[in-house]
Amino acid sequence: MPFVILLAAWAFAWPIVADESKPRTMQQVLEASKPSDWRALDPMNSVYLDLDAGRVVIELAPAFAPKNVANVKALVAERFFDGLWVMRVQDNYVTQWGDPDSDDPAKAKAVKAAKATVAAEFERPVAGLPSWTALPDGDVYAPEVGFVDGMPAARDPREGVAWLAHCYAMVGAGRGNDADSGGGRELYVNIGHAPRHLDRNVTLLGRVVQGMDLLSSLPRGAMAMGYYEKPGQRLPIRAMRLAADLPENERVKLEVLRTDTPTFAALVESRRNRRDEWFKRPAGRIDVCNVPIPARKAQ
Amino acid sequence: MPFVILLAAWAFAWPIVADESKPRTMQQVLEASKPSDWRALDPMNSVYLDLDAGRVVIELAPAFAPKNVANVKALVAERFFDGLWVMRVQDNYVTQWGDPDSDDPAKAKAVKAAKATVAAEFERPVAGLPSWTALPDGDVYAPEVGFVDGMPAARDPREGVAWLAHCYAMVGAGRGNDADSGGGRELYVNIGHAPRHLDRNVTLLGRVVQGMDLLSSLPRGAMAMGYYEKPGQRLPIRAMRLAADLPENERVKLEVLRTDTPTFAALVESRRNRRDEWFKRPAGRIDVCNVPIPARKAQ
Repeated sequence: MPFVILLAAWAFAWPIVADESKPRTMQQVLEASKPSDWRALDPMNSVYLDLDAGRVVIELAPAFAPKNVANVKALVAERFFDGLWVMRVQDNYVTQWGDPDSDDPAKAKAVKAAKATVAAEFERPVAGLPSWTALPDGDVYAPEVGFVDGMPAARDPREGVAWLAHCYAMVGAGRGNDADSGGGRELYVNIGHAPRHLDRNVTLLGRVVQGMDLLSSLPRGAMAMGYYEKPGQRLPIRAMRLAADLPENERVKLEVLRTDTPTFAALVESRRNRRDEWFKRPAGRIDVCNVPIPARKAQ
Repeated sequence: MPFVILLAAWAFAWPIVADESKPRTMQQVLEASKPSDWRALDPMNSVYLDLDAGRVVIELAPAFAPKNVANVKALVAERFFDGLWVMRVQDNYVTQWGDPDSDDPAKAKAVKAAKATVAAEFERPVAGLPSWTALPDGDVYAPEVGFVDGMPAARDPREGVAWLAHCYAMVGAGRGNDADSGGGRELYVNIGHAPRHLDRNVTLLGRVVQGMDLLSSLPRGAMAMGYYEKPGQRLPIRAMRLAADLPENERVKLEVLRTDTPTFAALVESRRNRRDEWFKRPAGRIDVCNVPIPARKAQ
């Protein structure tokens, strides 16, 4: 009986592989895309991190971290982040921002309607996932990897759970040693080789869709774990806002390529086997964190 | 007969797994290391890239790219790089330096004893590798991955070839569409998620051992492929020198952890299963590009 269940689980997880009778480059795939291959970012599900150097656009992932996402939105609504800082940049690892004293009740910035901490959301049931586009090439860390609504993810059919994958540009809620001590008062983004050992150890809640370079090119902190040595080295946060809370004409109008379409499958294939003239030996395989998730200005 | 050969190939490739009866953190492994677990960087095999912000130390990999390494040393000897620039920083991909006009004979900086181009060294025979420490957890891109004298590498026992892996901090010789058009007049370093699809497509010839942050935290270029828009945005190279060509007291004295020792096997195990209190679920696996290769000041 367990054998049957296992078979069934793997059966519905079978990857979609594009039927590319005529191999195309990614650019050719994108040029041939239809308007319906793209989805507009939902203003109720997008937050802007505004730094002096510009705006970072983050898409939230309520399908994986509903409570943590709700709390980040509550923190943003009460302008918790405004006037706080980017306080940690660790090379080949993470950039972190928010309240540097979040774990010290005596010094921490007070919350109002938002919660100080939220229970961990390290994984969720496979059942009820809004979509699943599997990749065909395996993974070092998980039995299966793929995409759920524009987010790199992994799942274990035997355990029946899925989780977001710590790829470049994924955003999570920092925490202390207690699994339930996160909640969003400190947020981090991956800026180096995917630290996949963090999967299922910390709550991921979104992905940077635009402006990654503003967070990846910052000076690295000289202290342990990349914390800046002096408070003056911290980078001020002008504001963090829900897109829906800004007037329509102040929003960043972006579309993200849908990951549950034949166009996306063709894009994956174009990256598994690069057809650009420069490439001499197409890899024939791809790591989940090397698949681009294109965004463009709304058409 | 082919079956026997295949078995034999995989047999000698069997990974070393540390016998850790008492699990340790990486810090504990390093604290218990012996002087013989470390090797001093060879001044004849180390180059310094000097920027206004500081010095980048690169260990060369002649075991994989003897001709390209020799040419980089020849270029360095004739001070080819001095006064040139970092001209390309593409987010989540590469930082590139050298002669931005290397592919234009009319504008390219002249070489003297060095060669303008050197034939590709994308792979080498497995036979004769100076060492091989296999990792046990598989890989998306290659049949087998591991380490050769402090460099992340991959190999295919059936084809009998090995190659360096495009992990973070690996340095390669940029080239044009012709496979043999590299040689070192433009060099690049990986600054994001490992672009392993470049493996066996371009010649890797070394690894940044110290100073990665000087190359990873630079402003990203606004042009296609991360090239800087204006020449004035390029970052000047003060000098690039072979360590051996500097007086003893001006060299950076570094030791790198040997990768062919029980101590390194214990380090890998400490990272496959993180024992720090913070971790709730040790991954039990590791990607070749997530294994740290520690360096320290010479003792």
